[in-house]
Amino acid sequence: MRVQYQLEKCEKDTKARLGKVITNYGTYETPMFMPVGTQATVKTLSPEEVKEVKAGIILSNTYHLWLRPGEDIVAKSGGLHQFMNWNGPILTDSGGFQVFSLAKPKDITEEGVCFKNHLNGDRLLLTPEKSIEIQNKLDSDIAMSFDECPPASASYDYMKASVERTLRWAERGKKVHSNPRQALFGIIQGGAYQDLREYSAKETVKLDFDGYSIGGVANDHESKEDMYKAIDYAIPFIPEDKCRYLMGVGEPEDLIEGVIRGIDIFDCVLPTRLARHGHAFTKYGKINLKNAKYKEDFTPIEEHCDCYACKHYTKSYIKHLINASETFGARLLSIHNIRFLIRMTEEMREAIKKDSLLEYRDQFMENYYGKN
Amino acid sequence: MRVQYQLEKCEKDTKARLGKVITNYGTYETPMFMPVGTQATVKTLSPEEVKEVKAGIILSNTYHLWLRPGEDIVAKSGGLHQFMNWNGPILTDSGGFQVFSLAKPKDITEEGVCFKNHLNGDRLLLTPEKSIEIQNKLDSDIAMSFDECPPASASYDYMKASVERTLRWAERGKKVHSNPRQALFGIIQGGAYQDLREYSAKETVKLDFDGYSIGGVANDHESKEDMYKAIDYAIPFIPEDKCRYLMGVGEPEDLIEGVIRGIDIFDCVLPTRLARHGHAFTKYGKINLKNAKYKEDFTPIEEHCDCYACKHYTKSYIKHLINASETFGARLLSIHNIRFLIRMTEEMREAIKKDSLLEYRDQFMENYYGKN
Repeated sequence: MRVQYQLEKCEKDTKARLGKVITNYGTYETPMFMPVGTQATVKTLSPEEVKEVKAGIILSNTYHLWLRPGEDIVAKSGGLHQFMNWNGPILTDSGGFQVFSLAKPKDITEEGVCFKNHLNGDRLLLTPEKSIEIQNKLDSDIAMSFDECPPASASYDYMKASVERTLRWAERGKKVHSNPRQALFGIIQGGAYQDLREYSAKETVKLDFDGYSIGGVANDHESKEDMYKAIDYAIPFIPEDKCRYLMGVGEPEDLIEGVIRGIDIFDCVLPTRLARHGHAFTKYGKINLKNAKYKEDFTPIEEHCDCYACKHYTKSYIKHLINASETFGARLLSIHNIRFLIRMTEEMREAIKKDSLLEYRDQFMENYYGKN
Repeated sequence: MRVQYQLEKCEKDTKARLGKVITNYGTYETPMFMPVGTQATVKTLSPEEVKEVKAGIILSNTYHLWLRPGEDIVAKSGGLHQFMNWNGPILTDSGGFQVFSLAKPKDITEEGVCFKNHLNGDRLLLTPEKSIEIQNKLDSDIAMSFDECPPASASYDYMKASVERTLRWAERGKKVHSNPRQALFGIIQGGAYQDLREYSAKETVKLDFDGYSIGGVANDHESKEDMYKAIDYAIPFIPEDKCRYLMGVGEPEDLIEGVIRGIDIFDCVLPTRLARHGHAFTKYGKINLKNAKYKEDFTPIEEHCDCYACKHYTKSYIKHLINASETFGARLLSIHNIRFLIRMTEEMREAIKKDSLLEYRDQFMENYYGKN
C-alpha cells in the first residue's frame, strides 16, 4: 500500500489542517515534525528513543546512503527499515538539496548534477532517474522527486529556467519510479517569485504526485518573509487531499507559521544539531547549557516536560556532560529538543481542533520570544 | 550501612570464590566486572542500558569529578548516584592512578602529588586526605585509598620507598574518612617484587580496611606474567572475608586468570574504548567492524548474545555507523562489549559452583585465541 493522506479538518480562521498519514508502518497525525536520520540513524538516538518522543515518521538522506553504505547493501539487508531497526514510516529526500549544498564543485546539466563525492573525491553523476532508483531500493515509505535547489539570491531568469528543469526532472523521475509500496512526492520551487511558485505548483500538480513539498526555503540566508511568501504562493494550487511538506524547516516559530499556512509535515536537523552544541529549546526560548549559571541548577531543562531527559536529569548534570564532551549529554538534549518540536505539533493539533491556532501562536510567541 | 562482602563458596581446584557484595543500592554477586563511568557517565550509555547489561556496580573517577564539575556540585545535587541518575552501587577510585598517568609534570612529596590540571593548567595538590574528602562528598559506596602508582620499570629501591609511602598515605586517608555509609578499600602495591607485594599486603591489612585491591598491574608495558605474580604474592595475606579488587583489568583472559587467583571484582575502560574504535569482543576473539568483510554481513555480532545490539542490529549496520562516525555505533558496541565481560563473570560464577573453572578457562581460551 502507498502512503495515503486523509484530511480530517480545516481550521476556521487559518489554512491549518488536521490530517492523518496512513502508511504500511502505522498511521500518524499531522501536523507532524520529522526528526532527521541522515545516515540511517537519528544522531545519538536509538529507534526506541525516537518512538518515545512520539515521532510519527523520520527522514533519511538519499545522498548520504547512496555514498555510504550504498543502496544495494541497504536493499540486501531488507530495506532501510530493517537495516536501521526502525519500524515506523520513513521519508527519503532525493539528494537534490545535498548535491547543491554539500557537493562542490558541481556541474548542472540537463542530464543531472555531476559532482565530487565528498568522502573520497570520485566524480559522480546524480540524475532524476538515479535518485528515484536509489530511493526505490532503500524502500522508504515516501520518496521525493529530484530537484534543483537554487540559492535564494538566484536571478528571475535563472530561477525560471531552473523551475522548468525541475519540472522536466520530476517527470523523468516519475517515469522510472517502480516501487509499488512507495509514495512519490513532487517538489515546488520558484524562490520568492510569486509567478514562478504558482507556475511550479500548477505544473507539478499536473504531474499528479502522491504529495507535494515546498522546497528551496531553507537555504542559507533565506529570509523568513520569503519563506512565508513561498508557502502562501504555492499552497492554493495544491489539492486539498494531498499531504504538504515544508522541507528543512524546524525553528519553532516557522513550524507555527507553516501550519497556519497549510503545511502538514516538516523536517529539520536543528533539534539534534542544537543538542550537540549544548542548546535546548524551552517554552521561554532557547537556552545554552554551557552558560555558567546552570552549574548548580538542579532542575530539569523544563519543569513539566514529559521527555526522558527532563524526567531524570538536571541542567547541572547535562551541563557537566556537555562540558566534558560526553555524548550522553547530546543524547539527552536531542531527546528533549525533538520532543519539544513534536509536542508543539501536538499542541497545534489540539488548537486546530478548537479553532484556536492564532491564540496558540500569540501565546507561544509571547513566551518564547518575550522573555528571551 | 557500609558495603559488606559475604563469601559463599571457594572453588575446589583454584582460589576462585563465589561471593556477594551487599550495598545500600542492592546486592550483587561476585566475580563481577565493573564498567567505568569516568565522568559520571559510562561513555555513550544511559544508566538503564548499564543495568540492562547486568552491571552490579560501576566505577567513577575521583580525579575527573574533582576537576569537573567539582565534588561540591555533586554533593549539592544529592551525591553521585543522584547526580548521574544511577541507583546501583558505585566505587570511586582515589585519583592516585590518574595523577600518575594523566597529570604531567608532577611532583611527588610526602604531602601528596602536585601537578597541573590537564583542563586549564592550574597547579593543584592532591593529598591522601583530600582524595578521601572528595570521595566522602561524592558519596560513593566504596572509596579507595590514595596510593602512589609507580611504573612497572621502577627499581627495587624506588618501589620499596613508594610502598612505604603508600602505607603512610593509606593511614592518613583512613583517619579523615568520615562518611559512615561509605566503605574504604586499601590498595596493595609493590610491583613484581614478591617481598614488597607481601609486605604491602600484610601492612595494608593491618590498617583494617573494608576491602583490598591490587594496584599497579595495569600500567603501560606491565607484562601479564608480572600481573599474575603480583596477584599470587598478595592474595594469601588478604583475609578471606574481605572483597578483593584487581584494578584496571579487563582483557578476557585476565578476568579468568584473576578469578582463578582469588579476585572478586575488576574494572576497565577496555570495553567502551574498544567500542569507540569499532572493535567487538566475541567468543572467537576480538573483531574489527571496520574490516571490509562485514560490509554485507547481516548477522549480529554474536549469534546467541542476549544484548540489545545483538538482538536488533547486524554487523553491516554497526559497521556503517562506525564508518560514518555515528555515535550510535559506539553505543551499540559498548553495550555488547560490557555485556560480553559481565556474561563471562556470570559463566565463571556458574563454573565455580560446579568446581569446573579450569575447564571453563581451557574452553574459553581455545575458542577465543585458537581461531583468532
